[in-house]
Amino acid sequence: MAAPSFDVVGIGNAIVDVLAKADDAFLKRQGLAKGTMALVDAARAEALYAEMGEGIEASGGSAANTIAGLASLGGSGAYVGKLRDDELGAIFAHDLKSIGVAFNTPPLTSGPPTARCLILVTPDAQRTMNTFLGACVELGPEDIDADLISAAQVTYLEGYLFDPPRAMEAFRKAAELAHKSGRKVALSLSDPFCVGRHRADFLDLVDQHVDVLFANEREICSLYQTEHFELAAEAVRGHCEIAVLTRSERGSSIVTAKAMLHVAPAAVARVVDSTGAGDLYAAGFLYGLTHGSDLETCGKLGSLCAGEVIGHFGARPETSLKTLAVSAGLI
Amino acid sequence: MAAPSFDVVGIGNAIVDVLAKADDAFLKRQGLAKGTMALVDAARAEALYAEMGEGIEASGGSAANTIAGLASLGGSGAYVGKLRDDELGAIFAHDLKSIGVAFNTPPLTSGPPTARCLILVTPDAQRTMNTFLGACVELGPEDIDADLISAAQVTYLEGYLFDPPRAMEAFRKAAELAHKSGRKVALSLSDPFCVGRHRADFLDLVDQHVDVLFANEREICSLYQTEHFELAAEAVRGHCEIAVLTRSERGSSIVTAKAMLHVAPAAVARVVDSTGAGDLYAAGFLYGLTHGSDLETCGKLGSLCAGEVIGHFGARPETSLKTLAVSAGLI
Repeated sequence: MAAPSFDVVGIGNAIVDVLAKADDAFLKRQGLAKGTMALVDAARAEALYAEMGEGIEASGGSAANTIAGLASLGGSGAYVGKLRDDELGAIFAHDLKSIGVAFNTPPLTSGPPTARCLILVTPDAQRTMNTFLGACVELGPEDIDADLISAAQVTYLEGYLFDPPRAMEAFRKAAELAHKSGRKVALSLSDPFCVGRHRADFLDLVDQHVDVLFANEREICSLYQTEHFELAAEAVRGHCEIAVLTRSERGSSIVTAKAMLHVAPAAVARVVDSTGAGDLYAAGFLYGLTHGSDLETCGKLGSLCAGEVIGHFGARPETSLKTLAVSAGLI
Repeated sequence: MAAPSFDVVGIGNAIVDVLAKADDAFLKRQGLAKGTMALVDAARAEALYAEMGEGIEASGGSAANTIAGLASLGGSGAYVGKLRDDELGAIFAHDLKSIGVAFNTPPLTSGPPTARCLILVTPDAQRTMNTFLGACVELGPEDIDADLISAAQVTYLEGYLFDPPRAMEAFRKAAELAHKSGRKVALSLSDPFCVGRHRADFLDLVDQHVDVLFANEREICSLYQTEHFELAAEAVRGHCEIAVLTRSERGSSIVTAKAMLHVAPAAVARVVDSTGAGDLYAAGFLYGLTHGSDLETCGKLGSLCAGEVIGHFGARPETSLKTLAVSAGLI
């Protein structure tokens, strides 16, 4: 069999972010839960947008941000996600291709527009997201190419894919194909509310199909319905090969059958916007994992990448992560 | 007659900016003249975009940036510009309305898409712009509302309006209406190449219709075809009531029939991206002018606003300019 062509293929909701500053009073008036992701329909998205301040637009999407981070580290990535053939779709596709990511999912030529996420960034640098899924609801198993999956060392799936109706089939198809080719499957739990909406499916997937799980503290606690991080970390042990649990300023824990490692967070001069922190942690970790690093180095790479992205507005790196990682002696 | 409802109405090309980092080698390969604005057609825009790196999108347009700055200072602004009813058009309209700017120009429902400007920002913080005018070519005199013009103390026109074919008629109509109502007309020369393309028309307008002229060093030198700033500054004297000449890190000069004032530039910790510097200078100056400030204070307000916008990526203020101006004791 030929050598893998990609380090990681990411599958996710292809979304353009609309980022605007807001204060806590705005979140309260709009009934938004700070730090989480809510799904909104077209009418609600329009109404909320009308109330938001001036925004900037930037390509986003959780798994796409991860693949962009991997590319910035010098890794080779591919992406699968559903766009419409509209202006925002062209922006999303351009931004991935411009950094060398393989992206060939055919866009819709009719139906809902490209997805957008209205992101309110509060002065405490927290981000509160409102996603209109648009074209993402049409992602299905027909978009999963067996050759692509078998060509990647890791297939990375975002938990947000549990929301659109047909993506789960695509999700399972990709996981099965990856394992059939002897590849790894990684999953990010994405959001505590998303875990709450789909807990049984997540538990089953983690147990049956996931080799590497990424979750933050609230997500892993939601999955195992406990308020104690330590209990959740014990609960996940053994259900997947590696569980990577991120805890913001408390760093991260890497849980395997035999060990639990702790990794310190990167030093960040000023936290501006936490959008993309988890996505970029996964980018660094997966780069390490697919380049033979030990787990501690994988975690440090994750912390480094997360540290870069929270230092500025937006969910994709502004600086070459490869340069940062080389400077830090991690690659 | 009722009191004016607006401090300034801006008329310009309604454009969404696509900003990406690039190095000097990229500019050279693409044959781009650093620091200027080039017009590109749809095919060239697409080809250039395909070569550009990851971008962010943000509302732009020279006069629109000025009106956005005026609003951030607490001034009341209105805007006239032509969009298409597409996704980028919706973004542009939202961003102006969200900061309280009156904007009611009907968008096109067919024909060319909303204009975009591909902006390459080099490590020296210079911006090089490539504008696809799109829907802007349809701006015409029918878009100029006499009531709106007479309701504003100043009608502010961007020189870039000389490029689309019918905007000049709109331009002259607006200037005549403004003067008929006893209002002021202000003009920005916008770009040295734009001045070169339309020198005779610019000279005539400055002489006949313009009360307040904004130009940077290269633009005023291009207008009077001299290489010496001092000669250009002397040449413009008397052709309009106030000529405001900006010189980047050398500050600005304000030329009237009787005097020439020099205003120091604002202290800027780190110049990141010069996009919007001239637009925001005009915002500060016009705010002062429409609120009874003396010319020196107008210039200081201009420097303050320009200083804010060059400290970050993008052409619109990120911080409340009112707060900055109050802190500086200017308003």
